[in-house]
Amino acid sequence: MNMRNIKLILEYDGTDFCGWQLQPSERTVQGELERALSTIFKQEIRTIAAGRTDSGVHARGQVANFPLDTSMPLAQIRAALNGTLAKDMRIMDIAEVDPAFNARFDAIKREYCYRIARKEKALERHYTWYVGYHLDVEKIRSASTRLVGIHDFRSFCRANANVNHYRCTVEIADWTETGHILSLRIIANRFLHSMVRTIVGTMIEVGRGKWSPEFIQEILDAQNRHFAGPTAPARGLCLERVYYNDG
Amino acid sequence: MNMRNIKLILEYDGTDFCGWQLQPSERTVQGELERALSTIFKQEIRTIAAGRTDSGVHARGQVANFPLDTSMPLAQIRAALNGTLAKDMRIMDIAEVDPAFNARFDAIKREYCYRIARKEKALERHYTWYVGYHLDVEKIRSASTRLVGIHDFRSFCRANANVNHYRCTVEIADWTETGHILSLRIIANRFLHSMVRTIVGTMIEVGRGKWSPEFIQEILDAQNRHFAGPTAPARGLCLERVYYNDG
Repeated sequence: MNMRNIKLILEYDGTDFCGWQLQPSERTVQGELERALSTIFKQEIRTIAAGRTDSGVHARGQVANFPLDTSMPLAQIRAALNGTLAKDMRIMDIAEVDPAFNARFDAIKREYCYRIARKEKALERHYTWYVGYHLDVEKIRSASTRLVGIHDFRSFCRANANVNHYRCTVEIADWTETGHILSLRIIANRFLHSMVRTIVGTMIEVGRGKWSPEFIQEILDAQNRHFAGPTAPARGLCLERVYYNDG
Repeated sequence: MNMRNIKLILEYDGTDFCGWQLQPSERTVQGELERALSTIFKQEIRTIAAGRTDSGVHARGQVANFPLDTSMPLAQIRAALNGTLAKDMRIMDIAEVDPAFNARFDAIKREYCYRIARKEKALERHYTWYVGYHLDVEKIRSASTRLVGIHDFRSFCRANANVNHYRCTVEIADWTETGHILSLRIIANRFLHSMVRTIVGTMIEVGRGKWSPEFIQEILDAQNRHFAGPTAPARGLCLERVYYNDG
């Protein structure tokens, strides 16, 4: 018996996954990962992820961990997993960590990126949301800075019985324009269900002039999902990185 | 009767196309475009493309033209086409051109990009060729410069009964490293069948040390496909731009 705690960095294309979380009769990232582990190691293994991404959401830096009873070297575990998994998910890094490490509860910050395409392109259709109308990016920036800090984000998430409170600390909410791509980089200690997508949908309403940047404060204060904008599509969203105390 | 000559700039994701050229019972870019034109305008229209890309090859700047009997404004033609076509091909630009303009025969240069991924990633799997082993990029650069100029590229193409000669003028063949992506930008007056992919397959043999950069001259001189390296996969290749005398 040689029980090790294995930590993975995962990249996946969310297009053909029904999100991270295990679901009977649906193709999910967790389901595929656990099936590959079971195929290789003949063990039933339960994996834990830092962020339970929704259906269609991508990840460049998802972190997962799981207990594994094997003496196989790490490089070989990684190669075996990448050899077994479909090409739309890849193990980018592998490490053995402290037995107490938990990818979800030890994460101190998550970083997401949401990409908006200002031109409708064929090659980026799975990884961007195409928004064709004029957007005032300065207004979007001004509105987004109002989200930075500690706020109750009840207005910016799907109602969820499983959370005790809606308080999140947003550290960064920056918009960058590169060619025809307008992208939001957002870092917070935690994200509520559909939070980034609701923020983006709301910012688009600001950018097209429906709401002023100042109205963000009213939306926050309302603590009511009906005050915010629509939920932007999953395909523009990517979990870029998860932060832990050790780096 | 109002016959106009319409020029399109097309972007497409080659993954689910059997290339540009019309084929019975296969999904091709030309087939989809002509079907959309026929649906919208109730006319049988034959389109001409600057580069007849192979199965799986992408395009960011394919150029096509066709005669169209309509008084519909250009913006409306474009919107109707983009509304009818599947999302993996998009009309990026539209213009009315001289009746004599021919997208294929008037093109003076074509620009392709071939992307090699040094890490196996999920999100770029359809748009790159993953090459995991060590590559000496300086040797690849040195070998590639030997292709610049006027040469007989018979060794670098699939045998083709439809060409009179194999002479091409390569203007640029530059390699760039950006993060884990190594990409070849190549511009020539014409490209033979599988030419860029054979060049890339050959350069990988140089980069991994099988051949010296000087050996490229011997391959050129041999005028025999068996001397060159393997054909790199289609998914790394993209037709970036077509050049005409008017710009």
